[in-house]
Amino acid sequence: MSETEFIIEPGRQDIIMTHVFDAPRDVVFKAMSDPELIPRWWGQRGNPAIVDEADVRPGGRWRFLHRDDDGNEYGFRGVYHDVVAPERVVQTFEFEGLPGHVCLETITLEEVDGKTKYTGLSVYQSVEDRDGMAASGMQDGARESLELLAELVAELLSKANS
Amino acid sequence: MSETEFIIEPGRQDIIMTHVFDAPRDVVFKAMSDPELIPRWWGQRGNPAIVDEADVRPGGRWRFLHRDDDGNEYGFRGVYHDVVAPERVVQTFEFEGLPGHVCLETITLEEVDGKTKYTGLSVYQSVEDRDGMAASGMQDGARESLELLAELVAELLSKANS
Repeated sequence: MSETEFIIEPGRQDIIMTHVFDAPRDVVFKAMSDPELIPRWWGQRGNPAIVDEADVRPGGRWRFLHRDDDGNEYGFRGVYHDVVAPERVVQTFEFEGLPGHVCLETITLEEVDGKTKYTGLSVYQSVEDRDGMAASGMQDGARESLELLAELVAELLSKANS
Repeated sequence: MSETEFIIEPGRQDIIMTHVFDAPRDVVFKAMSDPELIPRWWGQRGNPAIVDEADVRPGGRWRFLHRDDDGNEYGFRGVYHDVVAPERVVQTFEFEGLPGHVCLETITLEEVDGKTKYTGLSVYQSVEDRDGMAASGMQDGARESLELLAELVAELLSKANS
């Protein structure tokens, strides 16, 4: 399985992550943006995210929740600026536990030799916000999400081919 | 009249601009966010912006146009992530002439000694985008907009006090 790679350069305000999916990009786009499929990958293995709101269109709002084993809920929310199937989503992102700290996410899908390169660019309001996010261990969470997304993509592909 | 100040540091992805208004922040917030008043300051002196859409609430979309003397139109658009009266607006921003280049704007109003400090933070997807924006002379346009906003604020204040 493809690795997820991160670019986190000192002094910058962004985090870039890339992952190559062995599938056409319309399948990756569907897995990524279909509200019914989002819980499958936007969470942890064995603990699907709860989709409170996912109005996937420009100006639409999204709000997803993680619930831990003790029943605590952690909310995340934002709005979609652009949803251009099957190539690009631009959205805002805020963890409700740190209100007022917002980032801008740009997810781009490119077809390369029959595979799909996913690039997620997150731009933070300050270097401190970016450094805090990198220090929080978001890489492990993002890596797990993209692994789950890859499994979902493989499942969709296998259904489409059967 | 207060000066507009810019912080544009080399290698960063943001532009910060500040302006002090001689008015309480609820008046500044109203002038800044009322769709009927936006054309008065979101444009150039003698050439008000055209408000195509201004749904000023989280998830709402905005689209403003500049029309030049030859009738050419220049569109700008985005979505509101947060609208917290009278203290903060977080929104996306895209010039339709450069599609795909989006920035995240955070406008914060703070009351300081009876005046209102406006801070506009714009975070770009790359240093190159930020540098391109700074090189485009956006500072002159922003300075003029904030001057017009200051005049509008003074007018609202004078009406409220009369």
